[in-house]
Amino acid sequence: MSCNSHLLLNGIEFEEVTIDFCKRENLSPEYQKINPMQLVPAIEVDGEFKLFESHAILRFLACAFPGVADHWYPADLFERAQIDSVLDWHHSNLRHGTTGLVFNSTVGPLLAGLPPNLEAAAEARKVLLASLPMVESFWLKGDGHFLLGRSQPSIADLILVCEIMQLEVLDEKVRKQILDPYKKIGKWIDDTRNATQPYFDEFHAVLFRAKEKLIKIRSTGSSDETKIK
Amino acid sequence: MSCNSHLLLNGIEFEEVTIDFCKRENLSPEYQKINPMQLVPAIEVDGEFKLFESHAILRFLACAFPGVADHWYPADLFERAQIDSVLDWHHSNLRHGTTGLVFNSTVGPLLAGLPPNLEAAAEARKVLLASLPMVESFWLKGDGHFLLGRSQPSIADLILVCEIMQLEVLDEKVRKQILDPYKKIGKWIDDTRNATQPYFDEFHAVLFRAKEKLIKIRSTGSSDETKIK
Repeated sequence: MSCNSHLLLNGIEFEEVTIDFCKRENLSPEYQKINPMQLVPAIEVDGEFKLFESHAILRFLACAFPGVADHWYPADLFERAQIDSVLDWHHSNLRHGTTGLVFNSTVGPLLAGLPPNLEAAAEARKVLLASLPMVESFWLKGDGHFLLGRSQPSIADLILVCEIMQLEVLDEKVRKQILDPYKKIGKWIDDTRNATQPYFDEFHAVLFRAKEKLIKIRSTGSSDETKIK
Repeated sequence: MSCNSHLLLNGIEFEEVTIDFCKRENLSPEYQKINPMQLVPAIEVDGEFKLFESHAILRFLACAFPGVADHWYPADLFERAQIDSVLDWHHSNLRHGTTGLVFNSTVGPLLAGLPPNLEAAAEARKVLLASLPMVESFWLKGDGHFLLGRSQPSIADLILVCEIMQLEVLDEKVRKQILDPYKKIGKWIDDTRNATQPYFDEFHAVLFRAKEKLIKIRSTGSSDETKIK
């Protein structure tokens, strides 16, 4: 979602190709030529250059296409390095925690037919709960609306906000318990959403459809999501 | 180690400050002003600019200091994006696997006095065992000596080789069992070592001293390292 938003926000022409994990399209030989790691997102430029890993894609798009505003990934090396620092920190912290919790507690068991992995979900929840205070008190320091106290969003805001948005698919009580203590994070999500409309809502529509589907699934059976501590 | 090697290889003047984890120096208020995440490495430039996360540091050093050869982090945006892709992939794969296995099976219980976490070590081992074939067959594709089939090393070679070198502290039988199937990886480690001497051996001396210490510790007691499957 962060990649699509970035492309639209900056007027970069592209053709969107949806990869359906439920139909295992990510495992197809055709897609593996683009990303042998079998994950999304990935891009193909001019039918030749292939690139995967969302951070690498956003860095590349910001630098390779004329007209992308400087605030997304500044040319100033000191500012750029700080944005890289957020992005690199994100992998083993906020990303590991969010993805691990969402997949092992919810998406795996309720949408993909996998057995719940409560131990992995609990470990990921710990990482997430240790990461959120660092976002709230360190990365959102200062009076700016965005990460690093900046007045305009960078690719790091797109990446980290889209990550936290994944928590929407959790049981609502669990999600509120996790996120409610963090007022600055709540405001920052709103600020990033406002700065990237209408694309933010457009790309998160998929997520909210999954959320609705999960509410129905939960209403007809039991789920282990609230047991994870 | 990758950061120090890069600084020395490229003639960038610096003062090295060792942070002793056994003495909990990483938790000191003074160090937290440089890296609030309490981890190494971190740099301070001209007493003002502070930066942490090894990938972000190496990108910054390659761009900010004159005289760093282009092959370390090429100015060409397509080449640079591919190096970024390796680095971003590394976080949740090779790095997660190596660090998790080494810490939970060996460094934690045998050096830091923590209880072994065999479940976390086993999960990390799985990630490592899934990552190594991707390095061998995908990232080391082609005839070049280095990642992405390149003829000269990049910052990604420094980072990934230094990561794999951490496996030296494992029980030797376990280490050989993990690494021996990967002949291209073995040659690539040698090539990277040769391309970065004498700094490679100089900075890994600390690791080999830890390895010797662990051999003595294992000879006087039991260890759970070989139980992790």
